[in-house]
Amino acid sequence: MNAPRAILLVKCPDRPGIVAAISSFLFRHGANITDFDQHTSEDEAAVYFTRLEFQTDRLDLPLDDLEKAFALDVARPFAMDWRLTLSSRRKRVAVLVSRQDHALLELLWTWQRGDLRADVIAVISNHEDLGPAIAPFAVPFVHVPNDAAVRREAEARMLGLLEGKADLVVLARYMQIVSADFVARFPNAIINIHHSFLPAFAGADPYRQAYHRGVKIVGATAHYVTAELDAGPIIEQDVGRVTHRDTVEDLKHLGRDLERRVLARAVRWHCDDRVIVHGNKTVVFS
Amino acid sequence: MNAPRAILLVKCPDRPGIVAAISSFLFRHGANITDFDQHTSEDEAAVYFTRLEFQTDRLDLPLDDLEKAFALDVARPFAMDWRLTLSSRRKRVAVLVSRQDHALLELLWTWQRGDLRADVIAVISNHEDLGPAIAPFAVPFVHVPNDAAVRREAEARMLGLLEGKADLVVLARYMQIVSADFVARFPNAIINIHHSFLPAFAGADPYRQAYHRGVKIVGATAHYVTAELDAGPIIEQDVGRVTHRDTVEDLKHLGRDLERRVLARAVRWHCDDRVIVHGNKTVVFS
Amino acid sequence: MNAPRAILLVKCPDRPGIVAAISSFLFRHGANITDFDQHTSEDEAAVYFTRLEFQTDRLDLPLDDLEKAFALDVARPFAMDWRLTLSSRRKRVAVLVSRQDHALLELLWTWQRGDLRADVIAVISNHEDLGPAIAPFAVPFVHVPNDAAVRREAEARMLGLLEGKADLVVLARYMQIVSADFVARFPNAIINIHHSFLPAFAGADPYRQAYHRGVKIVGATAHYVTAELDAGPIIEQDVGRVTHRDTVEDLKHLGRDLERRVLARAVRWHCDDRVIVHGNKTVVFS
Amino acid sequence: MNAPRAILLVKCPDRPGIVAAISSFLFRHGANITDFDQHTSEDEAAVYFTRLEFQTDRLDLPLDDLEKAFALDVARPFAMDWRLTLSSRRKRVAVLVSRQDHALLELLWTWQRGDLRADVIAVISNHEDLGPAIAPFAVPFVHVPNDAAVRREAEARMLGLLEGKADLVVLARYMQIVSADFVARFPNAIINIHHSFLPAFAGADPYRQAYHRGVKIVGATAHYVTAELDAGPIIEQDVGRVTHRDTVEDLKHLGRDLERRVLARAVRWHCDDRVIVHGNKTVVFS
Repeated sequence: MNAPRAILLVKCPDRPGIVAAISSFLFRHGANITDFDQHTSEDEAAVYFTRLEFQTDRLDLPLDDLEKAFALDVARPFAMDWRLTLSSRRKRVAVLVSRQDHALLELLWTWQRGDLRADVIAVISNHEDLGPAIAPFAVPFVHVPNDAAVRREAEARMLGLLEGKADLVVLARYMQIVSADFVARFPNAIINIHHSFLPAFAGADPYRQAYHRGVKIVGATAHYVTAELDAGPIIEQDVGRVTHRDTVEDLKHLGRDLERRVLARAVRWHCDDRVIVHGNKTVVFS
Repeated sequence: MNAPRAILLVKCPDRPGIVAAISSFLFRHGANITDFDQHTSEDEAAVYFTRLEFQTDRLDLPLDDLEKAFALDVARPFAMDWRLTLSSRRKRVAVLVSRQDHALLELLWTWQRGDLRADVIAVISNHEDLGPAIAPFAVPFVHVPNDAAVRREAEARMLGLLEGKADLVVLARYMQIVSADFVARFPNAIINIHHSFLPAFAGADPYRQAYHRGVKIVGATAHYVTAELDAGPIIEQDVGRVTHRDTVEDLKHLGRDLERRVLARAVRWHCDDRVIVHGNKTVVFS
Repeated sequence: MNAPRAILLVKCPDRPGIVAAISSFLFRHGANITDFDQHTSEDEAAVYFTRLEFQTDRLDLPLDDLEKAFALDVARPFAMDWRLTLSSRRKRVAVLVSRQDHALLELLWTWQRGDLRADVIAVISNHEDLGPAIAPFAVPFVHVPNDAAVRREAEARMLGLLEGKADLVVLARYMQIVSADFVARFPNAIINIHHSFLPAFAGADPYRQAYHRGVKIVGATAHYVTAELDAGPIIEQDVGRVTHRDTVEDLKHLGRDLERRVLARAVRWHCDDRVIVHGNKTVVFS
Repeated sequence: MNAPRAILLVKCPDRPGIVAAISSFLFRHGANITDFDQHTSEDEAAVYFTRLEFQTDRLDLPLDDLEKAFALDVARPFAMDWRLTLSSRRKRVAVLVSRQDHALLELLWTWQRGDLRADVIAVISNHEDLGPAIAPFAVPFVHVPNDAAVRREAEARMLGLLEGKADLVVLARYMQIVSADFVARFPNAIINIHHSFLPAFAGADPYRQAYHRGVKIVGATAHYVTAELDAGPIIEQDVGRVTHRDTVEDLKHLGRDLERRVLARAVRWHCDDRVIVHGNKTVVFS
């Protein structure tokens, strides 16, 4: 169980022989496959997706050389978009928050108990409020004031803290717009938690919108951030039942539980290299 | 358990003394309350809603006279919008369908089994396909062709069949627009099943919309029909989880289960006088 | 919304006139009912249960006198088992834990955020491990070693800390047997979280039992502790789906989420005086 | 999408090279893999399970010869327990019922609309009641009286009707004991729906048991029938929430919905060759 492992993610045009090519290559080089998941999308052109985990302790050549051989022997002939990661290489995660602590605390607690294959390198907030709450977790807390007036400077300062240092940026109820420029620096590497069942109630104050529409179920959505607000690829969603008795406050209360659960799942799957983005959708090998 | 019962539904401006007034009135007249539910809405003006069931076998006066007394002694002083129904008075239900049978059959099974306090008086369809399928249920099946070109005549014919004869019209995947005029004849008495988790994916082909948006959960919504399409008061919703593996066909398949379950619940609650419409929302004493 | 309120819980033999008696009494004394829920159990003898919230700022007499009047005018004639509590009177809660932090932290977070109408007065553990984790919450942490050999002394020490000081004792994955004597000191006032969907998998290591039985759904159960192990009145349960892929570890991981959610809900309902125990079952006015 | 396909199910001791061996064999013979799922169980000895679907229209040899070649080249060296089925070979299903129609009707309706890859060859009942209800489905209905007194004769008669003619026997709320002898004739090919969340409330009248225990969630379980009552490998389960308001009748009502949903899923998975039994558990590639 504890042998070192690597994860291979592949996306390529579908055609016969892909499974045989990958699995024979790995077998030939002494890699024991421990997990194998695949999917073929039938939209327009058929696209093949796969995720493999394999043990690396009996490889017949160093991992770097295995990568080169894979590129030449398998990836090129099949025109693969691919990525190979050692499972010991933990993603570096930064969390952006404002004043609400629930989504942040859930991530930190999950991480602290060893359930998140990642290193949390920083918490950045546009308010100072949450500093004390995260003190026990021994993660650097940085206060970067941010609003429409100082957006450019704030983002420049955050980029200075994050670029080249964070592999994933998590918006854990960060109540500020993130510019298209900022987003472009972290392609498919910013995860936001939106407090509604998207695409319902995009935009501001979704619990109030949900209350006034009189829905009987509310939800939360974790998605990758793209230039278009609330429209990026959805990673995970969950919902909870409400009734006419629930006030906007009750919805927010219930929503907090949904948000932290949904966000924690999405971040864990991303950190385990279980998510492949394809167009505006995700393939999640959970 | 089998004593005859009546159901009282009330909506009025909230103020102290309502419960005492209603319950004392009923007690004075020999009505034993067996079920009592209430709700106060806090939007703008506070509004009080209640639903009571009481046994009528020991009333000290005939029900008609009880109604008159209630109107005078209780309803008028509290400015109540109210309705009193004998539980033995079953609602007369007509179902409108097109070609899909799932939502219709679910209702007919439920009814046949005795789980729906209603009489299904007719099934009307703009196609002939479902005639044989409902033959075993011994419900009149009427074929009324309907499309944009003949809408006016079709609705006139249906009104002839339904007005004064049906208390509730159920659109069980009826794939035709219903005009504002038709809707006006059955205020808060037409229930539609929409095959999405409204307000997400209103309009046509919601499963295709959901597929292309890449949501991880799909749903179905039962609502009262108003002049504005897909925007009436929601009675019930339910959802199911989907993944990247699910095709549009899979979503439709899953959706059929959601639709029939959600519609059957909404119709049952309506027939049991458990739903009060308030503005564009519902209070459901389920 | 912020007017002071009181909560009235009642259990009595069912008979006509109870609602009228209670509501007229309260109306007469200037109490505005804001919430009213009731239930009649039909097992053997019919039993009536109700929970009312009412505003106390316009009472025509002090609450103490109101209680006396209610006892005389209403409770005695109807043979009521009843309790009246000011909503400002917060319950004093003590939490017993061992080494696992998840259920405890959830309670402390909920409480810290102001979502629990209670005061957490102490955390007692048979291990020292969790001391540092709860330091930020500023709750007294007491280490009371406990096992079969020292059970009597340990419980005596805990009784010294708790009797007359705690209104509710929560076993948040406390891995020690609690003696019948200890239980008798807190009737219907000890809540335990059991890590299975009771009555399935009572006893030790339920996740391992569930794994070996090959169930497709696992659960957690919050219940009042009685002298008989794992058999007390159930307050709340929840479940999660599992597959053949899930190991015992995965089940424990999923289970932690279920446990903390279920326990937090049960404790919140108890602290809001929403639970009435009747025989070995609960009525929960949630 | 409509190319003819075959399904390969494999169970064998886990060791490196299995995926490469299977996928290379299929590729070599012109089989295009369209679906591939796998699982490795880590109990005691590691066991490998897989399910593949592949297109058969470009095979370089007839399917019979492919089977022989697979046996020799792949199955023998890896000591595989395996099965190859053409997806056009539909399973022949017989349904045993008593007086309740819900689970039966759901299966027949699913089958009639083409959602079940199977042929329903007979409905057998120990009562005559359901004959008329299934008339529209044009399935032979056979009345075979059965109780403890005539068990031996009844089962002999049913075996005469079923052996060699049915691939799967479904107990759709069949209220009679099935003998160990009968079970032995259909190993892993009798599916029962039990009206509780097993292992809770095994035995008779589970809804009454659930009611008296005061659980907050009830369930249904579809499992393969083995000689030991209610203890066979579980295929699928589902649950629904209940409250103190629900009577035994309400539980039965809710349960009917759970039962038919759970049974229909289990039967569909079995007919699609998605279930592998291993010891007393199932691997379900759904």
